[in-house]
Amino acid sequence: MTYSKENLDSLLAEIKPLDHEIMEQAQARLDNLTKPQGSLGRLETIARQVCGIQQTITPKVDSKVILTFAGDHGVAEEGVSRFPQEVTQQMVHNFLGGGAGVNVLARHVGAEVRVVDVGVAAPVSADGLISRNVKAGTDNFAAGPAMSVSEALQAIEVGMMTAGQAIADGATLLGTGEMGIANTTPSAALFAALLEVDVEEITGRGTGIDDDTLAHKISVIKQGLQVNKSRINGPLETLACLGGLEIAAICGMVLECARSRVPVVVDGFISSAGALVAIQLSPEVADYCFFSHMSAEQGHRLFFEKIGHRPLLDLDLRLGEGTGAALAMGIIEGGVKIINEMATFAEAGVTN
Amino acid sequence: MTYSKENLDSLLAEIKPLDHEIMEQAQARLDNLTKPQGSLGRLETIARQVCGIQQTITPKVDSKVILTFAGDHGVAEEGVSRFPQEVTQQMVHNFLGGGAGVNVLARHVGAEVRVVDVGVAAPVSADGLISRNVKAGTDNFAAGPAMSVSEALQAIEVGMMTAGQAIADGATLLGTGEMGIANTTPSAALFAALLEVDVEEITGRGTGIDDDTLAHKISVIKQGLQVNKSRINGPLETLACLGGLEIAAICGMVLECARSRVPVVVDGFISSAGALVAIQLSPEVADYCFFSHMSAEQGHRLFFEKIGHRPLLDLDLRLGEGTGAALAMGIIEGGVKIINEMATFAEAGVTN
Repeated sequence: MTYSKENLDSLLAEIKPLDHEIMEQAQARLDNLTKPQGSLGRLETIARQVCGIQQTITPKVDSKVILTFAGDHGVAEEGVSRFPQEVTQQMVHNFLGGGAGVNVLARHVGAEVRVVDVGVAAPVSADGLISRNVKAGTDNFAAGPAMSVSEALQAIEVGMMTAGQAIADGATLLGTGEMGIANTTPSAALFAALLEVDVEEITGRGTGIDDDTLAHKISVIKQGLQVNKSRINGPLETLACLGGLEIAAICGMVLECARSRVPVVVDGFISSAGALVAIQLSPEVADYCFFSHMSAEQGHRLFFEKIGHRPLLDLDLRLGEGTGAALAMGIIEGGVKIINEMATFAEAGVTN
Repeated sequence: MTYSKENLDSLLAEIKPLDHEIMEQAQARLDNLTKPQGSLGRLETIARQVCGIQQTITPKVDSKVILTFAGDHGVAEEGVSRFPQEVTQQMVHNFLGGGAGVNVLARHVGAEVRVVDVGVAAPVSADGLISRNVKAGTDNFAAGPAMSVSEALQAIEVGMMTAGQAIADGATLLGTGEMGIANTTPSAALFAALLEVDVEEITGRGTGIDDDTLAHKISVIKQGLQVNKSRINGPLETLACLGGLEIAAICGMVLECARSRVPVVVDGFISSAGALVAIQLSPEVADYCFFSHMSAEQGHRLFFEKIGHRPLLDLDLRLGEGTGAALAMGIIEGGVKIINEMATFAEAGVTN
């Protein structure tokens, strides 16, 4: 497969709506379980949605994989993060050693973490790492495009291929994750461009920058939007100009999940930027997504308002990596077990 | 032990504050883990709180028990619920058969469900049931006190004893649960009296009553508050006049957990009424509680505003049984694993 926009378009054409007939059957079953109708709230909504995705009223989400994509960002040279770029590479090793937040929470919910180098700046090799480096970090988007469209398409392809492999290996629920020092900056830039919101409103403190650095971050993003203005023309081009390699991979992963009818859990602020590109490429993709949590990162609330979705959790998380996706997987699996395991009124001899 | 108020008072005297020195040590460890400080938000708060409860920076919540207390309500004869009273007894059998919502979600998080008959109206016996029936349902509180103070104390004692047994059996995290047709009615009455809020604001649709029934439910609660006015004098007396046997048992369970320094997860609207009585008896009890979720039952939001707490989940649940407590146990265990299992910056070789 060559990395052409035509190939992407033909992939998008394969994404189909949820199966509403199955969802009606799922609702009928949910309404016949031993509880007041609707009393399990969003667990029931989850169960119905997974039924519509998987086209069965006995859905399965017990084989769970989180893909954590690592990539670096040229814009880090503007001093928009509290942490040096070397931390991206160091955290890749931490993920592979099992000591990071996402490892702990993935183990907790019984999910596997796969770590993908899609664009780390420093050479990194380690047992277990999926090495699909497209580029040694993006270029500084404050000075020009972060990536070429071809590079963005290659990174999308990495997301598609690694998601496709996880699905081929039997995964029934996927979660997005990412690591990349400075990557709230391209994410905020993407939201500003794709949602047409103010940079001040969408930009937050990331790992915990102070007021001066936040003001600087905002001006860097504004500069990036201005510098790339003539090239920003559609979701793919916007992704290339302002995004990141890991963000593009998440876009590709989400698209592949929708094509393959596998539910995908979108992690936090940065993952949402990748998912947003996918949704703007194909609106039906949103029905295959579960938004895991409301990040503590300023701007995530605005994202949800704009797209009209409500995240599952609100726990003030702002770590990324896939940590929120992991926790939400536990909730989603709970919802799926409700439709699979609860007794009906007739089975339990309970008066309806 | 006789069921006297003096005995309750001596129990209350054994409840101590959290260990703030340990909590500072826990915070220092959390700040040294491979993540930006505070970036795991409420998971870190959870971990620190459990450390302060259990007095260790290596806390354990892996042995989880939900106590589901069943009791009936005289006020059901006023026609305040969509379901007949026999459903309480039928659901007890469903719990023991493993087919109810709480069974599914407890299995999902690895918790055991123990079912306690503290006040079911119909005689019920079944393998596995903990039979501690104090009274065959409360009296109709719209016509007089639901229970005598002595009966309320006996039901509190049932909660204490069954919680104490679970703790003696090794439980490190307890969750409350309940079943009792019509029990949002006494719960709303308790909130109205204990929090001094309007009956209209605190009263909701329970299992799904229509507008006329809701108006009737509100007038029944107002009548109950009026009829019992002279006897309502302190949390224990209010519990006796307006509460339920399962609500009293939850109060006792929460008190025992605080005395034994075991974290307790409070389920939904009805469990919150039991927890509120415990907290009004001894304010330090609140530090031992995790409020699992914001119920879809109208009034729960007002409860949280009044007591100044924020629940962990907001999933539109309104089933009770312990379903919300089960889901929240999964989140709490995730938080505890963060402090136990994540690598420090030094261990992982990550630049801080």
